[in-house]
Amino acid sequence: MARWQPHASERLVVAALELFEERGYENTTVIEIAERAGLTKSTFFRHFPDKREVLFGGGTMTGLVAAGIDAAPAAAGPLEAVAHALDVIGKEAFTPDRREFGARRSAVIDANPELREREALKGLSLTASMIDALKRRGVPELTSRVAAELGALAWKIAYDRWSDTATSDDFGELARQALSEVRAASTLC
Amino acid sequence: MARWQPHASERLVVAALELFEERGYENTTVIEIAERAGLTKSTFFRHFPDKREVLFGGGTMTGLVAAGIDAAPAAAGPLEAVAHALDVIGKEAFTPDRREFGARRSAVIDANPELREREALKGLSLTASMIDALKRRGVPELTSRVAAELGALAWKIAYDRWSDTATSDDFGELARQALSEVRAASTLC
Repeated sequence: MARWQPHASERLVVAALELFEERGYENTTVIEIAERAGLTKSTFFRHFPDKREVLFGGGTMTGLVAAGIDAAPAAAGPLEAVAHALDVIGKEAFTPDRREFGARRSAVIDANPELREREALKGLSLTASMIDALKRRGVPELTSRVAAELGALAWKIAYDRWSDTATSDDFGELARQALSEVRAASTLC
Repeated sequence: MARWQPHASERLVVAALELFEERGYENTTVIEIAERAGLTKSTFFRHFPDKREVLFGGGTMTGLVAAGIDAAPAAAGPLEAVAHALDVIGKEAFTPDRREFGARRSAVIDANPELREREALKGLSLTASMIDALKRRGVPELTSRVAAELGALAWKIAYDRWSDTATSDDFGELARQALSEVRAASTLC
């Protein structure tokens, strides 16, 4: 067994982002990412299945979202439960100290079709995770699907605003604002 | 130049579906699909960029959806314009004679992760095409995004019901029904 490496996952993510910025996603290998992080290729593969996955944090987000919806007050309606989950994301993942990293990550993803594709699929698995969590609260199937789609859209809007380094609001507040805008827009459809 | 082959695209799609059913998606090659259709590999690649694409009809659907939204009456609201587009899809693509094919196609896609992934990405490009078409009608950005998400969800629900060979309603009617259910659910979120 290899020794446990403290913060190996974060070091690999930072190294990957730097290399993707410097020489492009296609021109970076897993070995180079591991070397930049001072780790080995096999350590990389204990954390991520492939190079494409390194900017997407495995299943962390889907787990946080599900836990956030599960923990919402029993009286909360579907979108209120989603807002609760987005607050959790703001506290656990999209913290103020990660905003600049978020902006750089978005720029790298936008520049590469393979990464854009992976991000789109991650978005769909987040939506699926929200649907399952809402159904566990007793929300009917169709209402769960609609609330998850609206929640996912609010998430994207809030993330774009949050990772724009000109803003200083926290992610949870931006998400609540986006959710209320999305809800208002849905009445105009 | 190769001779023009009548209905080459449809023949390739039918051949691919048969082979995927018989031996599985992974165990089927492009050459085998072309042979089954009585065509050559180079004819296949004039119609589809790769094996994964053969069940997804290139850009036909995105074009039909955009044209359907463009052609909706000027007074139609966003979801009414989407309903108009789904009517067009029902008349041009999801016609009653293709229902059984649709059910078989769904079964093959459900059985393969690569095809499910491609289908998910196609769904996203359909949503993007709806957003662009709604914005061309002067619908504000956020309302266009919400209407497209709700429209895409209604589409999926209607397609699942339509390709269930027990139903006999036409796709346009199923889509209007699904849109009104989705709209009602959005008021409960």
